[in-house]
Amino acid sequence: MAAIEETVDRLYTQMVEWRRYLHQHPELSFHEAETAAFIAKQLDALGISVRTGVGGHGVLGYLQGGKPGPTVALRADIDALPIQDEKACSYASRTSGVMHACGHDAHTATLFGAAAALAEHRDELEGNVVFLFQPAEEISPGGAVPMIQDGALDGVDAIYGVHLWTPFPVGKIASKAGPLMAAADEFIIDVKGKGGHGGLPHQTVDSIIVASHLVVNLQTIVSRSADPTEACVVSVGSLHGGTSFNVIAETTRIIGTVRTFNEDLRRQVKERLEQISAHTGAMFGATCTVDYKWGYPPVVNDPAEAERFFRVGAAVLGDDAVFESPLIMAGEDFAYYLRERPGCFMFVGAGNPQTEAVYPHHHPKFDIDENAMRGSAKLLISMALDYMKHSGKC
Amino acid sequence: MAAIEETVDRLYTQMVEWRRYLHQHPELSFHEAETAAFIAKQLDALGISVRTGVGGHGVLGYLQGGKPGPTVALRADIDALPIQDEKACSYASRTSGVMHACGHDAHTATLFGAAAALAEHRDELEGNVVFLFQPAEEISPGGAVPMIQDGALDGVDAIYGVHLWTPFPVGKIASKAGPLMAAADEFIIDVKGKGGHGGLPHQTVDSIIVASHLVVNLQTIVSRSADPTEACVVSVGSLHGGTSFNVIAETTRIIGTVRTFNEDLRRQVKERLEQISAHTGAMFGATCTVDYKWGYPPVVNDPAEAERFFRVGAAVLGDDAVFESPLIMAGEDFAYYLRERPGCFMFVGAGNPQTEAVYPHHHPKFDIDENAMRGSAKLLISMALDYMKHSGKC
Amino acid sequence: MAAIEETVDRLYTQMVEWRRYLHQHPELSFHEAETAAFIAKQLDALGISVRTGVGGHGVLGYLQGGKPGPTVALRADIDALPIQDEKACSYASRTSGVMHACGHDAHTATLFGAAAALAEHRDELEGNVVFLFQPAEEISPGGAVPMIQDGALDGVDAIYGVHLWTPFPVGKIASKAGPLMAAADEFIIDVKGKGGHGGLPHQTVDSIIVASHLVVNLQTIVSRSADPTEACVVSVGSLHGGTSFNVIAETTRIIGTVRTFNEDLRRQVKERLEQISAHTGAMFGATCTVDYKWGYPPVVNDPAEAERFFRVGAAVLGDDAVFESPLIMAGEDFAYYLRERPGCFMFVGAGNPQTEAVYPHHHPKFDIDENAMRGSAKLLISMALDYMKHSGKC
Amino acid sequence: MAAIEETVDRLYTQMVEWRRYLHQHPELSFHEAETAAFIAKQLDALGISVRTGVGGHGVLGYLQGGKPGPTVALRADIDALPIQDEKACSYASRTSGVMHACGHDAHTATLFGAAAALAEHRDELEGNVVFLFQPAEEISPGGAVPMIQDGALDGVDAIYGVHLWTPFPVGKIASKAGPLMAAADEFIIDVKGKGGHGGLPHQTVDSIIVASHLVVNLQTIVSRSADPTEACVVSVGSLHGGTSFNVIAETTRIIGTVRTFNEDLRRQVKERLEQISAHTGAMFGATCTVDYKWGYPPVVNDPAEAERFFRVGAAVLGDDAVFESPLIMAGEDFAYYLRERPGCFMFVGAGNPQTEAVYPHHHPKFDIDENAMRGSAKLLISMALDYMKHSGKC
Repeated sequence: MAAIEETVDRLYTQMVEWRRYLHQHPELSFHEAETAAFIAKQLDALGISVRTGVGGHGVLGYLQGGKPGPTVALRADIDALPIQDEKACSYASRTSGVMHACGHDAHTATLFGAAAALAEHRDELEGNVVFLFQPAEEISPGGAVPMIQDGALDGVDAIYGVHLWTPFPVGKIASKAGPLMAAADEFIIDVKGKGGHGGLPHQTVDSIIVASHLVVNLQTIVSRSADPTEACVVSVGSLHGGTSFNVIAETTRIIGTVRTFNEDLRRQVKERLEQISAHTGAMFGATCTVDYKWGYPPVVNDPAEAERFFRVGAAVLGDDAVFESPLIMAGEDFAYYLRERPGCFMFVGAGNPQTEAVYPHHHPKFDIDENAMRGSAKLLISMALDYMKHSGKC
Repeated sequence: MAAIEETVDRLYTQMVEWRRYLHQHPELSFHEAETAAFIAKQLDALGISVRTGVGGHGVLGYLQGGKPGPTVALRADIDALPIQDEKACSYASRTSGVMHACGHDAHTATLFGAAAALAEHRDELEGNVVFLFQPAEEISPGGAVPMIQDGALDGVDAIYGVHLWTPFPVGKIASKAGPLMAAADEFIIDVKGKGGHGGLPHQTVDSIIVASHLVVNLQTIVSRSADPTEACVVSVGSLHGGTSFNVIAETTRIIGTVRTFNEDLRRQVKERLEQISAHTGAMFGATCTVDYKWGYPPVVNDPAEAERFFRVGAAVLGDDAVFESPLIMAGEDFAYYLRERPGCFMFVGAGNPQTEAVYPHHHPKFDIDENAMRGSAKLLISMALDYMKHSGKC
Repeated sequence: MAAIEETVDRLYTQMVEWRRYLHQHPELSFHEAETAAFIAKQLDALGISVRTGVGGHGVLGYLQGGKPGPTVALRADIDALPIQDEKACSYASRTSGVMHACGHDAHTATLFGAAAALAEHRDELEGNVVFLFQPAEEISPGGAVPMIQDGALDGVDAIYGVHLWTPFPVGKIASKAGPLMAAADEFIIDVKGKGGHGGLPHQTVDSIIVASHLVVNLQTIVSRSADPTEACVVSVGSLHGGTSFNVIAETTRIIGTVRTFNEDLRRQVKERLEQISAHTGAMFGATCTVDYKWGYPPVVNDPAEAERFFRVGAAVLGDDAVFESPLIMAGEDFAYYLRERPGCFMFVGAGNPQTEAVYPHHHPKFDIDENAMRGSAKLLISMALDYMKHSGKC
Repeated sequence: MAAIEETVDRLYTQMVEWRRYLHQHPELSFHEAETAAFIAKQLDALGISVRTGVGGHGVLGYLQGGKPGPTVALRADIDALPIQDEKACSYASRTSGVMHACGHDAHTATLFGAAAALAEHRDELEGNVVFLFQPAEEISPGGAVPMIQDGALDGVDAIYGVHLWTPFPVGKIASKAGPLMAAADEFIIDVKGKGGHGGLPHQTVDSIIVASHLVVNLQTIVSRSADPTEACVVSVGSLHGGTSFNVIAETTRIIGTVRTFNEDLRRQVKERLEQISAHTGAMFGATCTVDYKWGYPPVVNDPAEAERFFRVGAAVLGDDAVFESPLIMAGEDFAYYLRERPGCFMFVGAGNPQTEAVYPHHHPKFDIDENAMRGSAKLLISMALDYMKHSGKC
């Protein structure tokens, strides 16, 4: 293990180069054609057998170890966001309006580093590694499901993934057993009333009144209907109705999101949302049509694999580096892999005021402390090796 | 009087021509240059002395009677609306996107008719008549105030005006003592909260929540604070906040209207609206900034002049033609004249299914039954003559 | 007429005595046995033929005029209220917890005065008078309906009634054509949820939440659903739920009142109230059961009879005494008589700071300026005589 | 250890007797005089030195072990509730309206059992045990604080306590590291408006409207202001205003509870509650006066002591018996001990359908499966012995 870690340190400069190249050449979700080609080229250069076009622009690298053993998948997501890069640095995005504002460039470069290091030590491996490069994490329904449907997990015994995370400082890593990241659903509610003269409300059904009451009523889902010991959010992000000061709006549209960590509660929230919408509309003689868009399920770590993370993480990065993550309100389609295989999703701190890595994810000035890639690669490698060593037991 | 009425009947064909010409050549509020020139030309042709450019595009015609007596003003508004004419008839608007969708063309033609008839009988008149052609009735602050400031009411003892009104059937006329048409004010409330991640509401101040509560809270102005025997409306016509399903909106804007018939209540509603806005914002840590735009005051008829209307109207058009108008929720800047002089604003029914005059005012297919102009001209003339005859007493 | 008015003036001292006797001996609605006996005795003493036990404790006095003509009914209500008299005066109530706090004692005494005066002049009368003493005005379903059902209006051509009214100053009288007093209905809404631990709201259906939303939602009946030109009130007077700080209340009860002046709107409000209640309950999984208790209908004066009031009132009490009443939000079962016969209900000002007649009706210190009885008796007599004189025409 | 456990088994019959005696003789909080005397007598009979009158009716028993070592306190609460016992069994409460409906009788009997067993083995003990019998757990401010102030924890190194818990089945035990039970605060909000006639709302400030809006507004504390990953409840348990259907209520009172597990959030909720109350009142011209009654703080277990519980509990009752407790929404003044000393509060399952131990705590038919006392005594003893054995380390 120590030898591989040294290899990672040696490869670090290369990882930075890879990451910066990708940062300059971002591609939007479902459009990662050149990124996929670049990945395939790198894997090929490392002597790793490659399968491309997996469930879209997905790429798989297969590394067979020198000794028999289980197969562990390590996953990186590769897509960028429709955001204009506002950083002044040399490696800023060269594509207008597209930016790696969530660190997926570094996820990819990290996995290159891990692949290179493991490939150097392939003879010693007591098992095999699949390097899973997944497109379209940012947009539901995501890239994980088509890759799984296209066989990405065939023969895989366990899977690990990391997210570089600027809210946590570089040098720290975190995860937790059970629910870690939220199911993130979207809802659109169209309120249909009856328009008319602003001075004659009794001849209308005022869709803005209905919508306003509906937003107020929805608060009771969290305040009254959800188990208070379960994290749950219902937020309305957008509310639009009407065009004039003196005309009653016939229609108003509400758009929002639901965040839960538990499938039962998630279904309950959807039901309550539909019940409240239907009756708030009917109360006023309006109709409220709910379009509930299921997003990714919650990311739920296998407890045994989370235990592995705490043990392995402490061994690799030190006792002080590891902490139990709070629940994270964002969603991740890594959730789908964890429904199919044991595994663990992990956060690697990437924030650092000294390198201006202080902006939240999806911010136009988002950046990471690149040193986070070093720990990230070591963590992925160590999780894989530990799994092989204990034949999957923790 | 009977002679003048016959003159009106004779002039009717001409009134229709005038009206159709104006209907084909509509001009927007504050841009009535050609309409004003047309008016001046017609008045001049009638041998009526003209003053143009009164408070903008206002035109005044002065008719001195053969005998001494009071001076009565008759008013027509002359502006059109930014609406695309959708009628198929020969006299449809020839200006794209501009239309006489409220009958001001007919008001103007009616006043031409009245002027022509009175001019024919000028020697018999026991007083003088001012023909007041007012621009910009449709848009606050309106054309009445600048005309008054420019002397339009100088020497005037009383003023009358009519509105052709398709919700009432042709052949009927209506008015009432005291409040008749609403004060129509506009308010804009800007809610400023603090944006953020939709899954992390506790780090934000959700402006959509504030705005929704505010719309709900505003209902209590009418339901609890306004004297139930006073007509009062507070309507929100437009509510816009947010751009994304998963981002808390930092700002939301509410736009609406207040309708009242009583200046005390009007001020009280404004105060309650500001009080509710301020505290609804403060409750959540947001700010609600209210921009209250005073519109026209209520149209309040002098009770004695309303009595004159009921008497004169019945004499001219028959007992069955006259009825007491309900309160009308629309506003009218005729209100300003009535603050300065005694007078009466009157509705002349112009609706008729047989002539397709069935659409509400401001509708793209709005039209009137042109016969309404006949009664309208007679009513205006008769009110003026009655005032002269009784030297202003009723 | 002048002679009768002088008779009233002469009888005034007696009217005060009657009134004070009744004030000291109040009886609750539906329990006016002794009051009825006292009435019968007085009428009998005046030589007026009496019928008792009419629809309960109702009493009718029949006065046949010396000449043929129509029959006019004059009505007084006779019941008191369950209020403890807090006045210090000599004629305060002698019955604990019962008080004439609405002036019905004076209505009765006034009608005695009118009866005495008319009886003195019976030979001159060109018609007949029915003196209608009605019990149970204060409590729905009231005493008017059973009296009507028991023949109180048989042979009656018109009916008049007054209410002494402390909000108006003594010396003034008021009424209006059309709607004058409100339909006053009561509603009881029982919210049934599911109780439970205050810390575990998700296991309950919180009836206080439902009830609170319901009260808020009901505001939209007046603010959005009612024609703004129609007076309309929906008030919740009582809201009770729960017994402990940490237990979710299973049931909550809302009690309130609806005031309208128009039967269509009245029905519409009831429907909206039921619609809002049903859906507010269903929204939360609770049930809201509405018990809507129809109260008295609106008091609607015949326009011609109201015109008679303005003319006769001015003749009797002076032009300055008469004004058009605003809508009065209280209810009156005089409404039922006006459904059956033409007539007019009238207010006679009874407020006077100099006699401490400054408290609102139903107040424990309520009192009237007794001089109001003088004008009240004259008004009733004059209305009857005027009706006879014009044979019912106005 | 095994020997002591056998002793407990032998003493079980005696524990049941003690418990049933106490069950028949319940005493309300702050009135536990006879219970305290009974406790003192039993401890004395066991040869344990007793201190009575500790911070009220508190009793301390001191058992000095045969060998030097740390001092461990074991705590039982001893008060009953103002509930009428509805059980039919022989040992039902003999005091009308007072009942051990929360299991404190069994806590006391369990601690007798533990004391008796440890006293038998006192020579082997490598430390000392304090038996802490605490009054007044049910009513804030509770009995813990005065006992602590009166020296109950002097010389004590650690403290353990159990709660028999019918929602968990007999045979199971549960606890957790960190927050376990809620801070349970009470709030009373008095809304002061201005009363008046139900038909004249504009002359009033309707306290029921204010209160209803306030209840609705309070929902946003949990739905918007609280970190969604923190458990938080704001419940209104009681809402009372008004006495009549047609009178606007001048005052309305809201009573409710706040449950939190974190002192920062707790203070934030109080601030939001005050902010929302103040502005909801001011919005309507009413005042809302908040009386916030701080209850017990959250019960927060020392993580190392919770670890001891999981280890010791599994050793004594089996691996399957032990589980991680969910957050419990009830409060406990054991919280105060844990602010002063390391320790652990633990739940011992006491529910059993076969013994009718199926009712929730505070129910008139509440009962426990008495076998739970056996495990409970063993758990307390084992925690103490383990602490001594490891000299406080885990």
